[in-house]
Amino acid sequence: MTPVALRWSGDAAGTLELLDQTLLPGRVSWLACRDVPVVIEAIRSLRVRGAPAIGIAGAYGTVLAAAEATRLQLAPAPALAHVQARAAELATARPTAVNLRWAVARCLRALDALPAGAPAAALATTLLATAREIHAEDERLCAAMGRHGAAVLPPGGVLTHCNTGGLATGGVGTALAAITTAWDQGRRFEVFADETRPLLQGARLTAWELVQRGIPVTVLCDGAAAALLATGRVGSCIVGADRIAANGDAANKIGTYGLALVAAAHGIPFFVAAPSSTFDLTLATGAGIPIEERAAAEVLAPLGVPAAPAGARAYNPAFDVTPAHLIRGLITEHGVISPVTAAEILQVLGP
Amino acid sequence: MTPVALRWSGDAAGTLELLDQTLLPGRVSWLACRDVPVVIEAIRSLRVRGAPAIGIAGAYGTVLAAAEATRLQLAPAPALAHVQARAAELATARPTAVNLRWAVARCLRALDALPAGAPAAALATTLLATAREIHAEDERLCAAMGRHGAAVLPPGGVLTHCNTGGLATGGVGTALAAITTAWDQGRRFEVFADETRPLLQGARLTAWELVQRGIPVTVLCDGAAAALLATGRVGSCIVGADRIAANGDAANKIGTYGLALVAAAHGIPFFVAAPSSTFDLTLATGAGIPIEERAAAEVLAPLGVPAAPAGARAYNPAFDVTPAHLIRGLITEHGVISPVTAAEILQVLGP
Repeated sequence: MTPVALRWSGDAAGTLELLDQTLLPGRVSWLACRDVPVVIEAIRSLRVRGAPAIGIAGAYGTVLAAAEATRLQLAPAPALAHVQARAAELATARPTAVNLRWAVARCLRALDALPAGAPAAALATTLLATAREIHAEDERLCAAMGRHGAAVLPPGGVLTHCNTGGLATGGVGTALAAITTAWDQGRRFEVFADETRPLLQGARLTAWELVQRGIPVTVLCDGAAAALLATGRVGSCIVGADRIAANGDAANKIGTYGLALVAAAHGIPFFVAAPSSTFDLTLATGAGIPIEERAAAEVLAPLGVPAAPAGARAYNPAFDVTPAHLIRGLITEHGVISPVTAAEILQVLGP
Repeated sequence: MTPVALRWSGDAAGTLELLDQTLLPGRVSWLACRDVPVVIEAIRSLRVRGAPAIGIAGAYGTVLAAAEATRLQLAPAPALAHVQARAAELATARPTAVNLRWAVARCLRALDALPAGAPAAALATTLLATAREIHAEDERLCAAMGRHGAAVLPPGGVLTHCNTGGLATGGVGTALAAITTAWDQGRRFEVFADETRPLLQGARLTAWELVQRGIPVTVLCDGAAAALLATGRVGSCIVGADRIAANGDAANKIGTYGLALVAAAHGIPFFVAAPSSTFDLTLATGAGIPIEERAAAEVLAPLGVPAAPAGARAYNPAFDVTPAHLIRGLITEHGVISPVTAAEILQVLGP
């Protein structure tokens, strides 16, 4: 029932298949990736997106790097160097989500267990096992976040921003999992999805996932959220995250911070759901999170149709940072961190 | 230099010409209106929009009603009844902006000065004189709002929402007039325009007006405003209004209320500019302002391109209400009302 964002086909010489999310909801089309540049292009172009999903794509990408080395018949040392270089490219394909860097680093660390001089094919086998492990793990984490999130969602409608469902993860999602899990438990409530300009992941992807599952969804322009919250129809807001600093400041899709401010003004609890791999405890606050600035055309030509006149510029950060004090709870696979403070985060996620 | 939204061509049997704003900025095309249904369709379809501009269009619409009566060779009494019936249709073509109702009522009142039994052609002549008066007056009001607005704009960049320039009025605009007047006075600052979903009046119209005038403009998605304000690049926000209640609550394009909340959270002054005809002192608060709900397709298919899947619903109020306490000052042709309270409003605008 939950859409799948990506899958691996075959053995360690196999193919990473990505559901091309730029074509949704109009077309369901799978992109076969047999080498790393195709994966990087797919990540940069948001054919695959969502912090957990790009982490998994990055992990499978390292397998493709080893397969490239195998096809190039590289000796063990150059093969390892090739995989490491490709891994570095993958890890930096997008700057904000920390899961990508985390997943790729975990794959590389798995290679440490191999004997020195292991051939490229052995690297690929180990990397595939690790990538599959990350993928399967994400599925379990999503299920846990769904349960923890559903348990804290107060009565009333729920408003979400961007896409945080199956398309954004290797499982049922993060924030959207809380909604669908509550629904599957038999609770009934209105579900609202911000369209999420510029790339409309809310209108295109979240609405699609919910329609697929038979959950009624109402889409609104991002600017209409304040009016909606003023009606009293919304009891909570829940979103995902791309990176969370040690103090709980959370980077997420542009528009999240404004929504959090609007929710606070209406006394509506605002939740962020993300697996522990989204936390970057090396950053004291959100001020340290790098924010990706994307192409002006995303703003000036919505869905590729020019709207603004020639000569207009654009301000187009892909993410913003919501300060911890606006977040009622951080929903992780280990449970809900609340109040959102450095101490609470360390207690749940620390070493 | 300021674009013109509408013009009357010819005598009392002439034509109302509307710049078709649905085609901007791609095409500059004038729509010739010779009867009332065309004007009503143009108002409903937002070919002409902006509270002052639709007021003026409504006023000229009453002239067309009298011209219809003339062409139909109606006797004086049925001619007057025809004009009154058409005027009622015009006045309710859109529900939120009070200027439309106000301008049409003013035209009808002008007929009271005519002798009983005046022929249709005489009605048309009187109505045209009144419509021209309203139009010319609006030009003066806009200039005054521009001066008063420029005088209170603090240093720093300025962010505006929707379109409030020449395209929205019979003159240089309301909120945008403050920006262009300050610019014409030699002040230099960054100008930011919210794109203003669903109909993108910011990206399409405000950016176009500013580009035409050689004022650099940066367009952003509505959801990016909070991130922008957090950067410190914006010193003030200024918007227009479609109806302002006696206590200063202001209805304006959807997204305004959220922007006002975000501005308040950053301590950035938020101004509303509107002529006195926008005030509806019969309404104690903004809760009484009727809010137009528009077609779901505006949300689900941006620029006519389907984004959301079949089965998704939409929440699409065209306006929201910003409470008075979030507004630093109301900029009118008589000066700036601040603090925004019922008493201050009554002092400036009352009988």
